[in-house]
Amino acid sequence: MSSEHARVANFGAGPSALPVSVLEEASKGLLNFQGTGIGIAELSHRSKEFQAFVNNMESLIRTQLDVPPTHRILFTQGGGSMQFSAVVLNMLARHRLLHPERAAEDTVLDYVVTGSWSKKAVEEAQRMGGARVNVVVDSRTFSESGKAFDIIPPHDACKFSEDPALIYYCENETVDGVEFSHEDASPASFPFHLLGKNGGLVPLVADYSSSFMCRPIPHLADHAIIYAGAQKNIGPAGLTILIVREDCIVDVDAAAKLGASPVPLTMSYKTLADSGSLYNTPSVLPMYISGLVLERMQRHGGLKHYEETNKRKAEKVYAVLREGQEKGVFKRKVKEGSGSWMNVVFEVVGPDAEKAFLEGAERAGMMGLKGHRSVGGIRVSLYNAVTEPEVDQFVEYAKQFIAERSA
Amino acid sequence: MSSEHARVANFGAGPSALPVSVLEEASKGLLNFQGTGIGIAELSHRSKEFQAFVNNMESLIRTQLDVPPTHRILFTQGGGSMQFSAVVLNMLARHRLLHPERAAEDTVLDYVVTGSWSKKAVEEAQRMGGARVNVVVDSRTFSESGKAFDIIPPHDACKFSEDPALIYYCENETVDGVEFSHEDASPASFPFHLLGKNGGLVPLVADYSSSFMCRPIPHLADHAIIYAGAQKNIGPAGLTILIVREDCIVDVDAAAKLGASPVPLTMSYKTLADSGSLYNTPSVLPMYISGLVLERMQRHGGLKHYEETNKRKAEKVYAVLREGQEKGVFKRKVKEGSGSWMNVVFEVVGPDAEKAFLEGAERAGMMGLKGHRSVGGIRVSLYNAVTEPEVDQFVEYAKQFIAERSA
Ligand SMILES: Cc1ncc(COP(=O)(O)O)c(C=O)c1O
Ligand SMILES: Cc1ncc(COP(=O)(O)O)c(C=O)c1O
Repeated sequence: MSSEHARVANFGAGPSALPVSVLEEASKGLLNFQGTGIGIAELSHRSKEFQAFVNNMESLIRTQLDVPPTHRILFTQGGGSMQFSAVVLNMLARHRLLHPERAAEDTVLDYVVTGSWSKKAVEEAQRMGGARVNVVVDSRTFSESGKAFDIIPPHDACKFSEDPALIYYCENETVDGVEFSHEDASPASFPFHLLGKNGGLVPLVADYSSSFMCRPIPHLADHAIIYAGAQKNIGPAGLTILIVREDCIVDVDAAAKLGASPVPLTMSYKTLADSGSLYNTPSVLPMYISGLVLERMQRHGGLKHYEETNKRKAEKVYAVLREGQEKGVFKRKVKEGSGSWMNVVFEVVGPDAEKAFLEGAERAGMMGLKGHRSVGGIRVSLYNAVTEPEVDQFVEYAKQFIAERSA
Repeated sequence: MSSEHARVANFGAGPSALPVSVLEEASKGLLNFQGTGIGIAELSHRSKEFQAFVNNMESLIRTQLDVPPTHRILFTQGGGSMQFSAVVLNMLARHRLLHPERAAEDTVLDYVVTGSWSKKAVEEAQRMGGARVNVVVDSRTFSESGKAFDIIPPHDACKFSEDPALIYYCENETVDGVEFSHEDASPASFPFHLLGKNGGLVPLVADYSSSFMCRPIPHLADHAIIYAGAQKNIGPAGLTILIVREDCIVDVDAAAKLGASPVPLTMSYKTLADSGSLYNTPSVLPMYISGLVLERMQRHGGLKHYEETNKRKAEKVYAVLREGQEKGVFKRKVKEGSGSWMNVVFEVVGPDAEKAFLEGAERAGMMGLKGHRSVGGIRVSLYNAVTEPEVDQFVEYAKQFIAERSA
């Protein structure tokens, strides 16, 4: 296919690169899905073909992430941002059913704030009302400037509430490049030191939007909710994937009768669970492409393969970053040990240096390297579909840039 | 393209047929969008290319539907069903700002119930609370059995409230095949006889999910909100199109301070309007294909062309239906004058006759003709992308079926 040759290396933060082989298969499926004579975007979501496809998607996630039978896998629309509200509404309904008499002032939502996305989530919780919002920790207080999200705070700095309706964290902060490190995921480290309190059913909610299925999820079984927009590692925008523990799929209408806020039907996890994620028309086409990506992942050895590759990719980029930093050309933005595998952020030192770096990259066929408009700098996103040769190409370019600038 | 030849005629009710030429173009855009070297599903929604594409989509809708500057065109996710809740939340926020002192018991939502979808909408309004829900009319009371949604009720049967926060109707009932007829859209007929009351700003909300852009929208400018899921006439599932009058884009947080229910940020029309529908990652790929469909519509002569073609298509099907009815082979399910252009529903008379009809159609390469599971029977969906030759093929088949059965 000639268009393949014209493709550039895409280091964008999302929507982001997808595997060429999947896109080629999808371009056929657009006209004719599995020999039905109907394109995938034209196919009824109630057809047996699509239902089978969705079931298979679910089992591809369940197998690769080792999701236990205690947890349901659900699909919905609305993006990660819709879940900022949905997790609050569903978890407050659950809390209401557990504590019918508790007043809103005595109901607490615990938020761990480590970057722009958890900050947005906590702001939405404050908007939604129905509970007191407790910022367990704001990692900016641990940065040198007091203003940057550049570190995962020590877990003993977190002030958790006694019996919160949810404990929220964002595993990978896409904008700030800060991530809860894999190595730190021992039960002794945050937020996992909470496990086992309150009889084991910790209301732990995690935004995995930008690190979903890049490696195994530590302590997955102990989470109440894990959610992720598809548009980083999994597929096109328009699909949100949820992993929800059974006790968090509650009768929101019963909770509303006891005083909880009503939950829009399309936001209720119970609606999704009861209908096998087909309460209303789902985003069939994004789901289809996501399914193809998940199949390909399984064929390629599942998460073990991706974990190894992603680790190597990230290490290569951090290595050249270290080299550039030593030579005064680059400046890391995140503290050692808190850096993300998926989004590596840094600055290029000197006037107009960043512009020169981006333009040179673009001339060499590498796109999407500009940092988020709120923080500037460079961001290298290394999602699953970014290949190791593409990473090598970036590293080569960065080395050359360092050589030129430090000469 | 060989896959084109294998395609069948798709009369499904949604997701439904899309133009082959659009799918062929989209299958290229999947790998490389407008020569960017990046596929459309991989492209940042903040890129200038995508922003230009969205602006163009908006103007394609504005031009063809003749949307006045008083109204914003917005794009979102979540489907029609999410709007069942969103219209209530946004319109109650508006009403609260207009009447800060009015109690929930004195706040009324008026619903015109003419089929399964407006019934679902009214049920969601009841769930959401914050107001009294008034069923202005339930068209089943006008059916012979008292149970069927088979007629648009006379407008003098409607009991509207004095100052409702919204007046809701569903223009085309996809399941039941009942539609507010074009010819009836004079200001004297429902719901347009309301226009001019309350100083002209009637809070008229219309679900146009299955008839959007099949013909001009009568009295568009007098509507508060018109919304439609894309997956019938416009594109793949995953995109919802909204046309919202400026006075219905309100500060939902200010309303919440006055006692209105908090509105999830992704459901707030103000969030969408202030961000040019790019508050969070939109469903880029469904939007892209929808944009290609809208471009094609404009090239083909816009709504005038589609109105003419769709009228002819519907008349052909209703004609053969009449013929079958006279011969005792078919039975119309909807009263004359209330039948939809987009979804024609009927029964095939006799034991196993329906099964035989469907199987014969399938053998002849016509799919998607089975009625909605809640009502059974046959449903012929005649959306924009269903071609006149395909309709002729269906009519031919139906004639043959009549001949065989009435012989
Ligand atoms: C970690 C994280 N959470 C949430 C979001 C919001 O997702 P969406 O744009 O789908 O609403 C993003 C988007 O980039 C993200 O990276
Ligand atoms: C008239 C009408 N309204 C609403 C809906 C619900 O749309 P969705 O499935 O996108 O939620 C449909 C779906 O077919 C419909 O036909």
